[in-house]
Amino acid sequence: MIAKTPTPPYYAVIFSSVRTSVVDGYVEMAERMLELAQQQKGFLGAESARNNLGITVSYWQNLESIANWKKNIEHQMAQCYGREKWYSAYKTRIALVERDYGFGDVTD
Amino acid sequence: MIAKTPTPPYYAVIFSSVRTSVVDGYVEMAERMLELAQQQKGFLGAESARNNLGITVSYWQNLESIANWKKNIEHQMAQCYGREKWYSAYKTRIALVERDYGFGDVTD
Repeated sequence: MIAKTPTPPYYAVIFSSVRTSVVDGYVEMAERMLELAQQQKGFLGAESARNNLGITVSYWQNLESIANWKKNIEHQMAQCYGREKWYSAYKTRIALVERDYGFGDVTD
Repeated sequence: MIAKTPTPPYYAVIFSSVRTSVVDGYVEMAERMLELAQQQKGFLGAESARNNLGITVSYWQNLESIANWKKNIEHQMAQCYGREKWYSAYKTRIALVERDYGFGDVTD
């Protein structure tokens, strides 16, 4: 659900994607990548939703933790295969969260 | 689909939300807010997806354009009504996009 992130500043990686019709292995990959991301140093949380467009936002302590996750070999293989099979287009945006506010039971 | 944003830096507003079961007026409000946002100075684009969790990311030129959009009276009424009716929880994160890269036909 809504990620319980610490007080800013921290980083967000916004991954917006459009899928191909290839389903083979996609769900397994997505689950494995989330599991693997959660084990990385500096990982703070993730949120995901998909209709025609998919948006996954992962939250990280700093740029170093994002760079390390990008270099993870299993993640790199998934990225490569993703470009070849699962995604027709994607865009990744690295953003410094400066401020946040909320409502409801996610508001710390 | 994936928003065609300019070269960074620019700002992202990440709005993550959990809906109540109230459907009355929700779709109309969401469409109206997108239409209205698109008319604001500094609006660069938006992306949206929802399953159990909804994620809408809107992109803006600078903090001033975000502040002006937040103050828009029609937007403020929607936020108020949203807390009362449509959302059980939400979180808004204001983030400076420092870098982006992509693949496929959204890559400018």
